[in-house]
Amino acid sequence: MDANNQTDEGQGGRRGRGERGSAARRAARGGSGPSPSMPFIMRRIGVYEVLDEEGLSLIEANADTIMEEIGIEFRDDAEALALWRAAGADVRGQRVHFPKGLCRQLLKTAPSVFTQHARNPARSVQIGGKATVFAPVYGPPFVRDLDGNRRYATIEDFRNFVKLSYMAPSMHHSGGTVCEPVDIAVNKRHFDMVYSHIKYSDKPFMGSVTAPERAADSVAMCKILFGDDFVENNTVLLNLINVNSPMVFDQTMLGAAKVYARHNQACVLSPFILSGAMSPVTVAGTLTQILAEVLAGAAFTQLIRPGAPVLFGTFAASISMQSGAPTFGTPEPSLVSYGAAQLARRMGLPFRTGGALCGSKVPDAQAAFESANTLNTTLLAGTNFVLHAAGWLEGGLVSSYEKFMIDQDQLGMLQKMAEGVDLSTGGQALEAIREVGPGAHYLGCAHTQANFQTAFYRSALSDNNSFEQWEIEGAKRIEDRANTMCRAWLEAYEAPPLDPAIDEALLAFIAKRKESMPDAFT
Amino acid sequence: MDANNQTDEGQGGRRGRGERGSAARRAARGGSGPSPSMPFIMRRIGVYEVLDEEGLSLIEANADTIMEEIGIEFRDDAEALALWRAAGADVRGQRVHFPKGLCRQLLKTAPSVFTQHARNPARSVQIGGKATVFAPVYGPPFVRDLDGNRRYATIEDFRNFVKLSYMAPSMHHSGGTVCEPVDIAVNKRHFDMVYSHIKYSDKPFMGSVTAPERAADSVAMCKILFGDDFVENNTVLLNLINVNSPMVFDQTMLGAAKVYARHNQACVLSPFILSGAMSPVTVAGTLTQILAEVLAGAAFTQLIRPGAPVLFGTFAASISMQSGAPTFGTPEPSLVSYGAAQLARRMGLPFRTGGALCGSKVPDAQAAFESANTLNTTLLAGTNFVLHAAGWLEGGLVSSYEKFMIDQDQLGMLQKMAEGVDLSTGGQALEAIREVGPGAHYLGCAHTQANFQTAFYRSALSDNNSFEQWEIEGAKRIEDRANTMCRAWLEAYEAPPLDPAIDEALLAFIAKRKESMPDAFT
Repeated sequence: MDANNQTDEGQGGRRGRGERGSAARRAARGGSGPSPSMPFIMRRIGVYEVLDEEGLSLIEANADTIMEEIGIEFRDDAEALALWRAAGADVRGQRVHFPKGLCRQLLKTAPSVFTQHARNPARSVQIGGKATVFAPVYGPPFVRDLDGNRRYATIEDFRNFVKLSYMAPSMHHSGGTVCEPVDIAVNKRHFDMVYSHIKYSDKPFMGSVTAPERAADSVAMCKILFGDDFVENNTVLLNLINVNSPMVFDQTMLGAAKVYARHNQACVLSPFILSGAMSPVTVAGTLTQILAEVLAGAAFTQLIRPGAPVLFGTFAASISMQSGAPTFGTPEPSLVSYGAAQLARRMGLPFRTGGALCGSKVPDAQAAFESANTLNTTLLAGTNFVLHAAGWLEGGLVSSYEKFMIDQDQLGMLQKMAEGVDLSTGGQALEAIREVGPGAHYLGCAHTQANFQTAFYRSALSDNNSFEQWEIEGAKRIEDRANTMCRAWLEAYEAPPLDPAIDEALLAFIAKRKESMPDAFT
Repeated sequence: MDANNQTDEGQGGRRGRGERGSAARRAARGGSGPSPSMPFIMRRIGVYEVLDEEGLSLIEANADTIMEEIGIEFRDDAEALALWRAAGADVRGQRVHFPKGLCRQLLKTAPSVFTQHARNPARSVQIGGKATVFAPVYGPPFVRDLDGNRRYATIEDFRNFVKLSYMAPSMHHSGGTVCEPVDIAVNKRHFDMVYSHIKYSDKPFMGSVTAPERAADSVAMCKILFGDDFVENNTVLLNLINVNSPMVFDQTMLGAAKVYARHNQACVLSPFILSGAMSPVTVAGTLTQILAEVLAGAAFTQLIRPGAPVLFGTFAASISMQSGAPTFGTPEPSLVSYGAAQLARRMGLPFRTGGALCGSKVPDAQAAFESANTLNTTLLAGTNFVLHAAGWLEGGLVSSYEKFMIDQDQLGMLQKMAEGVDLSTGGQALEAIREVGPGAHYLGCAHTQANFQTAFYRSALSDNNSFEQWEIEGAKRIEDRANTMCRAWLEAYEAPPLDPAIDEALLAFIAKRKESMPDAFT
């Protein structure tokens, strides 16, 4: 498992800065593409915490009580129950009761930091420690397209979001189901999704979790790409294993988790929580249940293969107690995220939460306030893997092109924020203050001239011109500018090179597998 | 000065919860007004910090160097220079050079916590310590009105923003120049502004700073309202004293500061910084200059009257190095705000920064992302007084009705966030988890029924309904809903009662003073 036990040293900050690729070449020739991709974030700023030692201990003790007294269900999976029995748990029916400390003991083999490898080594990411990795929206069946239509997503949309994630400078990951390609049969679309991630991007990606055989297909395709041994001894897939909260693991997710853990691929163990429905209406109660669920699920991966990477995942939202609708970007999910990140650090597991979550139907100020509240929390909580970091709209029902562009610009800001305060001699700027003196300005001074290129985050979407200039330019809202930029990016897109032999082998594998099964649409 | 030296105890959280007033009565009769006003925030969450001891000491040492070696200018004010000379500073021309430690020594008399009294004692606010007080936008000459026009502001707009601030549940302060009533002569509008704050609200407010005699008029009007002795022995006005950065105090601001400090009224000593123009292009350099400027200006208030309240103010924004336009909500100003808050705490002064700052011309996603980034930073920095907390648009050139409504909703979220995690038995919700168990839901359980009213922040502006429901209701953007709500509030507004004798005396004073001077329009 040594390949998974990397430390914070020598990653991120240094690696990849020299990496430019085609985006930089395009920029150099004056193209309309984005600036070059940044390496994943190594945070130089601290984390924000909302619980003290007493609060953390209380929640941990309560989680232990839940696990022992109430138990967690592992449904319709005799193997899972047998494994738990053998590990010393008290299994009654499908309900597993955990002796205090059992799961924490099992989790000692799980790595706190590991590398997820990309086919382009410069795009590999560290998961855990001070690393933060942004990945796009996951799951929406609909898109809001560039012509303003809200419609079912297709494989073409899927490819587009892969391309946009490949081009977005502060998107470090290609994600998973960036939208559901509903024009392809349910039992076959995972082939096209995994293939699109491989073909149209060179960033790391996620595997299919909707059935154990689809997980196996994802692993098989990675073996064609990376080689058998490499896959078995390294991690090349991150996989979203949702808990069926409260306190249930279902057969599908257990099946997928087993496949991935067995092959040393990472499970993102994520209670899917809308507080008030799937957990208590309180922050502390929700945190307690999340902790119990993650402890049980993450420990289960270690029963399958000790040392298999696993993340402490949290998807935190609330529901409106009037309508039952999910709500995002409100204070309570932020408190849950901060608290869950603390619990994850104490467990020594990498942490996933957050993203650009919102309930709005359009990329308006509601969408932005909700997304910003969640994104700021995500960064300051010290989140390691951020799903839904761009493109999420309408409670996750819609992948929005315009929202994706606006969000990815914000990710650039968070990446700059994470660098913290530069206290070097140049950062202190005492010479500049001496040069300028009282009553003058810094615009032309030597220090400003030497540093202005890198001094401030430069948004390509925000309009900070005068009102008059803005009016002359058409009085555009940010989503209008995002629409224009998105079209330009897709126009400028160039695929990263892929070994033709691998490409052929992948296509042959897909064709053969697809042939072997009839289309299924449910 | 004892009246100014209150502690955190017995404020906020407890006081004012029982306060309801006309808003509650309206709500009880099913009116369309807002929920009742909340007391100011007493933060139960910690602060976020970006500098360690080494960084703080470095910046403090550099600020000392600036103050001693470069000096700060106090322009066109012989009295100020004489006071500095007498205090032991080295005055050369208008430039004051400060021996190391002089300003910090002088600041020992400044209170770290004080009360700003409102005419309704339930609306008085604590400034400093764990208190956070939200005040509306300050300064715009333009408004974006409810008919979508961008036009010069009038006294009617001014009154409207006072009314809206009075009604907004999480707006704790009436502010100052909520917009410039440009339909009134420049030398007379301060009367109408101060009178509007007194007449149409009972929350605390700010005095005029555009000329020493206007400051004196503000104090005189407060003496009519509160009584002579009360004003001299307490603080009833907060006053925005901007530094003419870099490192210049001008005659106007010095004149106003002297009037207010002499009468024991609070100065919010605020370097007005667009980094890259008025300060170096780096965060550490900007912090160094801010610290030097605040040390000099705040210490000056103590030369005028030891014990006069003074705040460490920071207005942090950057400029676009392409166009020179100010930019907001970017990472660098956030780092400046976090750092400045730390420096203020080490000085023992209350801290002001932040607000709902943005550069956008309309309340779109750009405006919201920029505002949210700034507001989240403001709260987590531990800011005590937050100017521009609602209504700011277009770099502060415009007071926007719709933006005000959207922002004030977010202030409610921040107020809820500041309560932190409830770890009581009810908060832990172990009984709820026991009752519900695996695979069920919490919607109907006893704990949910008992707690759902107060569990989650409830936005009156966010739409979380289904896409279909939202479409049936007109497919409205949040600014459309804000427009409707704003009209309803202004319709439902009821003035807080004001003693008719005081009202008459104020009007008589204003009439007499106005008569004594010709209109001036510059």
